[in-house]
Amino acid sequence: MKATGTVKKILANYEGENPGVKGKLCQMLMNGKLAGTGKMIILPVDQGFEHGPARSFAPNPEGYDPHYHYKLAIDAGLSAYAAPLGPLEAGADTFAGQIPTILKVNSANSLMSGTSGKNQAVTASVDDALRLGCAAIGFTIYPGSDMALDMFEEIVEMRKEAAAKGVATVIWSYPRGEGITKEGETAIDVGAYAAHMAALLGAHIIKIKLSTDHIMQPEAKKSFEAAGIDISTQAARVKECVRSSFDGRRIIVFSGGASKGADAVYDDARAIRDGGGNGSIIGRNSFQRSREDALEMLGKLVDIYKGKA
Amino acid sequence: MKATGTVKKILANYEGENPGVKGKLCQMLMNGKLAGTGKMIILPVDQGFEHGPARSFAPNPEGYDPHYHYKLAIDAGLSAYAAPLGPLEAGADTFAGQIPTILKVNSANSLMSGTSGKNQAVTASVDDALRLGCAAIGFTIYPGSDMALDMFEEIVEMRKEAAAKGVATVIWSYPRGEGITKEGETAIDVGAYAAHMAALLGAHIIKIKLSTDHIMQPEAKKSFEAAGIDISTQAARVKECVRSSFDGRRIIVFSGGASKGADAVYDDARAIRDGGGNGSIIGRNSFQRSREDALEMLGKLVDIYKGKA
Amino acid sequence: MKATGTVKKILANYEGENPGVKGKLCQMLMNGKLAGTGKMIILPVDQGFEHGPARSFAPNPEGYDPHYHYKLAIDAGLSAYAAPLGPLEAGADTFAGQIPTILKVNSANSLMSGTSGKNQAVTASVDDALRLGCAAIGFTIYPGSDMALDMFEEIVEMRKEAAAKGVATVIWSYPRGEGITKEGETAIDVGAYAAHMAALLGAHIIKIKLSTDHIMQPEAKKSFEAAGIDISTQAARVKECVRSSFDGRRIIVFSGGASKGADAVYDDARAIRDGGGNGSIIGRNSFQRSREDALEMLGKLVDIYKGKA
Amino acid sequence: MKATGTVKKILANYEGENPGVKGKLCQMLMNGKLAGTGKMIILPVDQGFEHGPARSFAPNPEGYDPHYHYKLAIDAGLSAYAAPLGPLEAGADTFAGQIPTILKVNSANSLMSGTSGKNQAVTASVDDALRLGCAAIGFTIYPGSDMALDMFEEIVEMRKEAAAKGVATVIWSYPRGEGITKEGETAIDVGAYAAHMAALLGAHIIKIKLSTDHIMQPEAKKSFEAAGIDISTQAARVKECVRSSFDGRRIIVFSGGASKGADAVYDDARAIRDGGGNGSIIGRNSFQRSREDALEMLGKLVDIYKGKA
Amino acid sequence: MKATGTVKKILANYEGENPGVKGKLCQMLMNGKLAGTGKMIILPVDQGFEHGPARSFAPNPEGYDPHYHYKLAIDAGLSAYAAPLGPLEAGADTFAGQIPTILKVNSANSLMSGTSGKNQAVTASVDDALRLGCAAIGFTIYPGSDMALDMFEEIVEMRKEAAAKGVATVIWSYPRGEGITKEGETAIDVGAYAAHMAALLGAHIIKIKLSTDHIMQPEAKKSFEAAGIDISTQAARVKECVRSSFDGRRIIVFSGGASKGADAVYDDARAIRDGGGNGSIIGRNSFQRSREDALEMLGKLVDIYKGKA
Repeated sequence: MKATGTVKKILANYEGENPGVKGKLCQMLMNGKLAGTGKMIILPVDQGFEHGPARSFAPNPEGYDPHYHYKLAIDAGLSAYAAPLGPLEAGADTFAGQIPTILKVNSANSLMSGTSGKNQAVTASVDDALRLGCAAIGFTIYPGSDMALDMFEEIVEMRKEAAAKGVATVIWSYPRGEGITKEGETAIDVGAYAAHMAALLGAHIIKIKLSTDHIMQPEAKKSFEAAGIDISTQAARVKECVRSSFDGRRIIVFSGGASKGADAVYDDARAIRDGGGNGSIIGRNSFQRSREDALEMLGKLVDIYKGKA
Repeated sequence: MKATGTVKKILANYEGENPGVKGKLCQMLMNGKLAGTGKMIILPVDQGFEHGPARSFAPNPEGYDPHYHYKLAIDAGLSAYAAPLGPLEAGADTFAGQIPTILKVNSANSLMSGTSGKNQAVTASVDDALRLGCAAIGFTIYPGSDMALDMFEEIVEMRKEAAAKGVATVIWSYPRGEGITKEGETAIDVGAYAAHMAALLGAHIIKIKLSTDHIMQPEAKKSFEAAGIDISTQAARVKECVRSSFDGRRIIVFSGGASKGADAVYDDARAIRDGGGNGSIIGRNSFQRSREDALEMLGKLVDIYKGKA
Repeated sequence: MKATGTVKKILANYEGENPGVKGKLCQMLMNGKLAGTGKMIILPVDQGFEHGPARSFAPNPEGYDPHYHYKLAIDAGLSAYAAPLGPLEAGADTFAGQIPTILKVNSANSLMSGTSGKNQAVTASVDDALRLGCAAIGFTIYPGSDMALDMFEEIVEMRKEAAAKGVATVIWSYPRGEGITKEGETAIDVGAYAAHMAALLGAHIIKIKLSTDHIMQPEAKKSFEAAGIDISTQAARVKECVRSSFDGRRIIVFSGGASKGADAVYDDARAIRDGGGNGSIIGRNSFQRSREDALEMLGKLVDIYKGKA
Repeated sequence: MKATGTVKKILANYEGENPGVKGKLCQMLMNGKLAGTGKMIILPVDQGFEHGPARSFAPNPEGYDPHYHYKLAIDAGLSAYAAPLGPLEAGADTFAGQIPTILKVNSANSLMSGTSGKNQAVTASVDDALRLGCAAIGFTIYPGSDMALDMFEEIVEMRKEAAAKGVATVIWSYPRGEGITKEGETAIDVGAYAAHMAALLGAHIIKIKLSTDHIMQPEAKKSFEAAGIDISTQAARVKECVRSSFDGRRIIVFSGGASKGADAVYDDARAIRDGGGNGSIIGRNSFQRSREDALEMLGKLVDIYKGKA
Repeated sequence: MKATGTVKKILANYEGENPGVKGKLCQMLMNGKLAGTGKMIILPVDQGFEHGPARSFAPNPEGYDPHYHYKLAIDAGLSAYAAPLGPLEAGADTFAGQIPTILKVNSANSLMSGTSGKNQAVTASVDDALRLGCAAIGFTIYPGSDMALDMFEEIVEMRKEAAAKGVATVIWSYPRGEGITKEGETAIDVGAYAAHMAALLGAHIIKIKLSTDHIMQPEAKKSFEAAGIDISTQAARVKECVRSSFDGRRIIVFSGGASKGADAVYDDARAIRDGGGNGSIIGRNSFQRSREDALEMLGKLVDIYKGKA
C-alpha cells in the first residue's frame, strides 16, 4: 500500500536500518483504521503470563481463547497485535497475513517470589518470529532492577539478530526493582529516562507507561527545575518523553495500565496525542471489556488520534 | 487487512507451511486492486539481465531507472513486483513496505554462448530477501536442460531455507535445453509437466508460459488422446496446467512473453481467467509501453480478472 | 570531512546499503583532488598478475616496487588505489589510512592456456580487506565466458559478506569468452550490457571499458536502431552505459586500456565527463610513464573532470 | 590524506597491529582541525545513558536530537564522535563518512541501585561497529570494582574481534567500586594505574580522568615519594599518566567531567598539552553549552592544542 | 637471538604481517651458519613423493631414514628443513626445536598419468604445521596449468589461515602444463612471472628455478627488448627475478634441480648471490651425495653466500 507522507517521514528517521525493518514498521503504520496517520493502537495480550488467567480473562471470558484477541485486533482495525509464543501459535495460521503481529519474546509472572529478582525469562526467539510471520519482537526491560544489565545484554543480542533478518523491535521499558521507589516507577524523570534507554538500546518502537508529576531523582529534579521543564499536565509529560526518544525520531506508545473508566482512557489518549506521542498500547482496558464495549472504545480512540474527538 | 473467504480458501491449500509463509502469500493476495479476489498480477523486471538494457528499456527509457518499476507496480495496484538484487536494492528503502517484492535469486543472460549450457547463476540469497523485506524469492528452473537436476537441487535447498524463515517461493518453470525441441518449449504436455514439477519441488507460486496445442512427447500424446483432454483453446490448456498444479491447490500465474498488441494481452488474460489460472506476470508488455499506456492496460487486466471485461 | 551536496546525492542512491558501505563510498568520493566533485580517478595495479612483471613494469622500472604505486596515488591526489593481496600487504602499514584502497580479490594471468577457460582465481578474502583496512573489494566478471555463471555466484557471495561488514564492492565487468567476438568485447551493446549486469549483481562501483560503435548482437542492433540511440561519439556511448547503470544510480568508471598518447587519454576523459560517467580507472597509462609524466597527466585529468580543461 | 611525520611516529608505536587498525587510528588523527598534530578532541555523548536525558540535554535542548551532536562534531572539526548504538544509528546514514565514529559498546545508568554492583551492560557489538562504519569501539572498565575482572574479560574478547576486523579500541578506564575510596577515584596513583591497566589490556586509545594530587594507596605513596615523582601540578600528573601508558606509546586522552567555566576547561587542556597528553574527550562541557558557545570553546581548545593559546 | 640490521631490514618489508609470522621468518634467518646474513640455505626432501623412493634415496641409502635429513640440516647449519607430513612426523619429536621446519602441504607424484592434469594434492594442514611446531608451510603452484586457478585458491585460503596463526608461507612456483612449452618452463620471462605471481598471492618466501635466457611469450620478448633487460648471465636473470619479487621486498630462493657436479652447484650459488637472491633450496644435490660430501658442499655454499668463496 502506498505510504503517506507522514509515514514516510517517520520511516526516514530509522536511517540506520535495512529495508526489511522499515517495511515492517510501514506495515504497522499502514494497517487498520489509523493507517497513514503516524499513530498506532496496539493490542497486547501478555497479561495471562504476568497475572495469571483468571485475573486476566475472567472479567470477559471470551478472552481465554487466543482467537478472540486476533479477531478483536482485526475487527477494531488496530495497528498490531502483541502476544507471547503460545497464543500467537494458537491463531497464527487462521489469521496469517491479516494483522501485523509482535512476538513478545520475554515474560515475567506473578508466581515469582520476592527473592527471585526482577527479571523475565526469554520465552521465544527471532526464528519463531520469522516462522510465525511477525512484524516485530517485543522485549521488556526493567531499568532499576539489579538484573537490568543482563536484560539489556539479552535484548541487544536479539535486536541485532532480528534487525539483520528484517524484523523490528519493540521495547517495553518498565522501571522497577532495587533502584526504584514505588512512586518512582511512574515518576516523570524515570519515565523519560526509561524511554531514552530503550532508544539507546536500539528500540524501533518504545513502550512506556504514562507518568505522574513526581520526580524521583534529586539530581534530575535540579535539571528539570533549572530548565523549567513543564510537567504539570499529562500532555506536557508525554512531550518530555517524546523528546527523550531522540527528539521524536523513535515511535513511542504508551500503555494504559490497569482497567479503568472509558473517559480516563480517552483522556490518556488525548494527552498522548497532544504531547506528540504515537499512540496507545492498550490491553486490559480493551480485552477485559465485552467485545462490543471494546470495539466502541477502540473506535473512539481511533477518532481521538485522528483529531476527531 | 482482513482476508476474504476466497483468499482464506487458497491459503488453506498450503497446509504444510508455517504462518510466516502463508502470511506472505496473503500479503500478495490482499494487495492492490485485485486484493481479495484470489487473482494476481505481478510485474517482473529481470529482462535487463536476460536480454540486456537496450532491448529491455530503450522502448520506454524511463525504465532504465529502477524506481520507475516500483512506482508503476504501486500505482497500477499490482500484487507484487519481482526483480534481481540490484534493482530491488536501488529502491527498497524508498518504497519499503509499499508493495510486496519478490527477489529473483537466479539469472541467465543472452551473452552466454551455445556451449555454456542452459543454466542460471544464483545471484542472491534468502538473507538478502529478509534484509530487503521481500515476500518471496523467485527461481527459474529449465526442465529439459542437462543442468536441470542441479537447478532443482539449488531451489530445493533455497526453498527450505526461505520457508523456515517465513519467505514464500515462486518458481519460474521454463522448459528448454537438450531434452526439448523449439516447438516443445511451449507444447501443452511440456507446459503442464513444467507446472507439475514446480509444484513437486515445493513452489508456493508457479509461473509458466501459455501453451500451444502442440504435444511434444509421443507417450504424452497417447495419454492426452486416450483421456480426451481438451487442448483446443487457450482456456482449455490453462485448465490442464491448473489441474497439473495439484488440481488447483497451488497458485499458478502465466507470463506474457514478448511485447504484443493490447488485445492479444487481454485475450491471454481472459483465457487464464476462464481456465482457472490465478493471474498474469507481465513484464515487457507493461514496462515497454509508456507509463500511461501501461496503466491503462493493467487497469483493463484488473477488470478482466474481476470478470468485468 | 563534510561531504558536498553532490556526494550526498550520489550516496542517497545506495539506499539499500548500511552506513558502513556508504561511509566507504564517501571516503573515496571525498579523497584527493576530486574530493566532493562526484568524480573519481582510481589507480589499479593488477597488470603484473595479468601480463607479468616485465610487460607491466619494465617501461618504468620504479613500478616493480609496490610502494611506488601507493606514493603515486597519494601524491597525484587520486580517489583510491586498487591492487591484489601481495602488493597491498607490501605497503599497507607504511601508508595506512593515507589513501582508500581496493583489494582486488580475483585474478587471471596470461600464462593460462587456451583450454583453461576464461576465468579468474579468487586470490583474497573479505577478511583480508578488513585486516588491511580496505574501502572496497574488487572483482572481475567475464560476461560471455562459459565460466561466467560461476564468477557471478562467487562475487554475489563475497559482496554479501563484504556489505554486511561495511566494505564496498567494485565490479570489473569485462565481456570475453565463448559468447563474445573479438570486436564484440568493446561493442557498445555488449559494454552497456556488461555495466547493467554488474549493477544487477549489486556492484557499488562499476568498471567497464570504453566502447566502439560496433553492435555485436543482432537483436540489440534492432533495439538500438528502433529507439534511435545515439552511439556516434564516445560521449554518447558513455551516456548509454551510464543509463544502463540504473539510470546513473550507480557510480561507473571507465578503464583506459593499453598505453597510448596523452592526448588520447585526455580525449577519453572528456568523453567520460561529457557522457556523465564518474571517472577513470587508469593503470598502464599512468604507472608505465615516468613519475613526473604520470603526475602531469593525472593533474590534467583532474582538471578535465573539474571542467577546467 | 597524506599523514604527517608526527602521526606516522604515533602509528609506528602500534607495531603489533594490522594496517586496518592503524588506518582507523590514522583516520582519527588526520581528521578535523587538529589533523596531523598528534592531538585529538573527541565528542562523547553517552551521558544520556549515564545520567538520563534531562540531566544531559535539558541545559541545551537541541541535544535531545542525535543529529545535533554529529553536526557539532563535524562543524567544530573534531577528531571523532562517540556514542552508544541508538544515537549512532539515528544519524549514521545522514553523516556516513563525514566524521570518524566510536561505538560505545557498554553502558551503565544511574537508575542502578547500590546493590547492583559497579558494572556496565554490553549494549552493542563489533558487527554493529562494522555495519555502522565506525573507526573504533569504546568500552568502559571500572578498576577497583568487584565486577572489574568480568569487565576485563569482556573487553579483551571484544578487542580481539575488533582488531582482527580492522577496528580500533578505546578504553574508558574509570576507577570506582569496592576497592576505591571516593577521593581515590581521582587520585594520581589510581589514575596512572587505570591508564596502565587499559594499556595492558590492549587499548589503542586510553581515556581517563584528570587526577588530583591525592595518593590513595600507601604502598604507592612510598614509591611516589622514593622516586620523587612530581605531582604538584596538573601537567606533572598528566605526565605521570602518559608515562604509565607505555611511556607515551599509547594515545591517551582526558575527560573533562561535569560542566564548568570555560577558563577551567582551557586550563585543563593546557595541562594535558604540557604534560604530553594527546587531547580531550569533552562531552557535557561542549553539548550542554549553546552551539555557538560550544563552537567557540572547541575552537579555543584547538588553538591550545596547536600551542597558539 | 638479537637480529642483525640486515635481517631487521628484510623483516621490515613484511609490513602487513603480524609479529608471529615475522618471528618465524626471523627464526629461519637467524638460524645456522648463515644466521644474520639475510641469506638462506634450505634442505627440501619431498623428492620421495615426486619421484619415488629408489630414484630419491638409493644413491645414498641413509636418506631412506627421515632422521638422516634432520641431522644433515642441523649439522650443516642450514636455515630450515622442508618435507611432507610423514617425514616431519617421523623426526619432529627427536629434533623438536633444533631446526626450523617447513611443512610441505601439497604434493604431486610421478605415478600420475598424462590425463590426470598438472596438479597436486593437499596432503597436510595448518593445524599439522602448528602441532609439529613448523616455522612455515610450503605449497607448490603450477602457473600455466589448467588447474592453476584451483591451486591459487587453495594456497590463498591456507596462507590466510597460516598467517593468522603466526605461520609463514613458502610458495614453490613451478610453471608447467597446458600453457607452457617445455623450454618455457625455465624461460626467464616465465620464471620472473612465476616469482611475481607467488608474491602477488602473498608468499613470504618464494622458491623458483634458475632460468635460461629463453623468452617464451612474444609479448614479453618485446618488453624485455624494449627495456633492454640484461638476461645474458645467470646473475642477470636472478636479478630480474628478484626485481619481480616486489623489487626485493620478498625473500626469494632458487632450487638446484637434478643432481650435478659440485662446481655447477657452486656456480649457481654465486649467480644467485651476485644477482641479489636470498639463497638456495638444495635437495638432491645434497642428500644424494654421501653425508661427508654433502657437508663439505654445504659448507662451501655457506662460504659462497658469505662472500668468501
